[in-house]
Amino acid sequence: MSHHYTTRLHAAIQSKGTPALVGLDPRWDQLPPDVLAHARELHDDPVAQAAAAFEEFCVRLIDVVAPLVPAVKPQSAFFEEWGPDGCLALARVIRYARQQGLIVICDAKRGDIGTTAEAYARGYLAGFDPLCAHWQADALTVNPYLGRDTLEPFLRVAKERGAGIYVLVKTSNPGSASLQDRTADGTTIYHHVAQMVEELSLETEENGYGIAGAVVGATYPRELSELRLAMPHVPLLVPGYGSQGGAAADVAPAFDCNGLGAIINNSRGINFAYRAAPFAEQFGSRQWEAAAEAATRQMIADLANHTPAGKPAG
Amino acid sequence: MSHHYTTRLHAAIQSKGTPALVGLDPRWDQLPPDVLAHARELHDDPVAQAAAAFEEFCVRLIDVVAPLVPAVKPQSAFFEEWGPDGCLALARVIRYARQQGLIVICDAKRGDIGTTAEAYARGYLAGFDPLCAHWQADALTVNPYLGRDTLEPFLRVAKERGAGIYVLVKTSNPGSASLQDRTADGTTIYHHVAQMVEELSLETEENGYGIAGAVVGATYPRELSELRLAMPHVPLLVPGYGSQGGAAADVAPAFDCNGLGAIINNSRGINFAYRAAPFAEQFGSRQWEAAAEAATRQMIADLANHTPAGKPAG
Repeated sequence: MSHHYTTRLHAAIQSKGTPALVGLDPRWDQLPPDVLAHARELHDDPVAQAAAAFEEFCVRLIDVVAPLVPAVKPQSAFFEEWGPDGCLALARVIRYARQQGLIVICDAKRGDIGTTAEAYARGYLAGFDPLCAHWQADALTVNPYLGRDTLEPFLRVAKERGAGIYVLVKTSNPGSASLQDRTADGTTIYHHVAQMVEELSLETEENGYGIAGAVVGATYPRELSELRLAMPHVPLLVPGYGSQGGAAADVAPAFDCNGLGAIINNSRGINFAYRAAPFAEQFGSRQWEAAAEAATRQMIADLANHTPAGKPAG
Repeated sequence: MSHHYTTRLHAAIQSKGTPALVGLDPRWDQLPPDVLAHARELHDDPVAQAAAAFEEFCVRLIDVVAPLVPAVKPQSAFFEEWGPDGCLALARVIRYARQQGLIVICDAKRGDIGTTAEAYARGYLAGFDPLCAHWQADALTVNPYLGRDTLEPFLRVAKERGAGIYVLVKTSNPGSASLQDRTADGTTIYHHVAQMVEELSLETEENGYGIAGAVVGATYPRELSELRLAMPHVPLLVPGYGSQGGAAADVAPAFDCNGLGAIINNSRGINFAYRAAPFAEQFGSRQWEAAAEAATRQMIADLANHTPAGKPAG
């Protein structure tokens, strides 16, 4: 089997029959009551409670989604907020997800220069051998502001280890235009970043795609279509589906004619499906895992209806 | 005493009589032999060894520099590389530095959208009360690529807590031009970011400076002069002095007429002074702390000779 990150990802997408990516966003104030109760039984210290609750919540969510989707994306910020204990919970969650056969994209949006960037890369990117990096992630989100030379250390380590990176190109937030949409030398800044990522992916191409991916928000469907064309060899990570307002029709242009080339993320809409319509009434907080499963299945069906080739072959 | 971050920083600069900032960069392959030997005596596990060595190295370095400089800047990447154990060492090092009366700028270059950015802010920014954030930092470096709306959650938390942020504007690496120097709407991208940061600092101004700082590399002296003028209310963090090639004359334009408004970072040149000329011959690896102290004193003298107002009043 190939060690190439995107080849591995595409095999997982085809095996599960969906490009759905589940974000793991353990927001303390939204955790289900039974998870909080268990953590309080185990620990008196609030930090230890949070770390235990995060781990239990994510592990149970992974158990729900592992049979259904190819990959998960833990959001590092929610773990880091709780200090070193939160970080330990993140490491355990990543390890568990990999043990369940999931591809893990650590959403930490790192970026720094030279040997410092290399330290992040060595710490996070494990690729096909989970044990070669302490964080054991298959891929990491990376910020391009510092320049092309700061992406190269990430890519070098990723290539060696069969891992991948996703460079922020056009993000899903309302204010992403303030820098990304400025026009320089005849085109937008996000387009310049896109060209950079396309070049980096061409250098690492296998089966049509390289290992330098791009983050492009579902909340900007016009830009998503444009960027798919501008980056034909780049695997896309598309956030913003669901809670942020992106619909399946909006993300359809992200895929190639085989239904590959993109993964579509949903975090809150699955993690906390039990708190919102339409699943809150049906399941309630005691059945939060059933709500998460129903939301995942709904997303998979929704994407299948709007993916160019229908459900990916597998 | 004011809780305002930059007012606190300037008081510390005046009290120590220097704007020198010491980076804490525990690079495993450059640690002094005695630190490595102690870690190996204590632990068999290589990860536990690294974490113990990082903590001992940074604590001893803090003991050397705490009487001399106002602030330290731990580089998160070198700790994170070693997983959760490295993160725990980082938290301990920050706590120790604050206990020694130092201002701590955590160099983690975080950035994300909305409530995720807020989670980073709440986790890292402690300001005047160290216990209100698990990482206990006075300030955090932040990446602006995601847009102005993603800086606001950091600033809101920083303002509440008497903390600060430093936004990447013009970084010190050779490739920083690839995005930052592109011209859009009549001026460079770094200048657009600078305007954003100046606005954010004007909103939080006290004694002439706000709490939204800017990272501007010493390796680009012309841009540093331009950016000082463009951001009159913004405290600068200037990396690139020393090992990266920036000289004291290059950083002189960063200061206002009182010798305030900027801190100048040196990491490798102090941390690993014992390994390089001119200190290697004089001290050698057994006296690495004496070498670090000599390098710190040399930097302080060098800056004092080139600061507009000479040594800041204090």
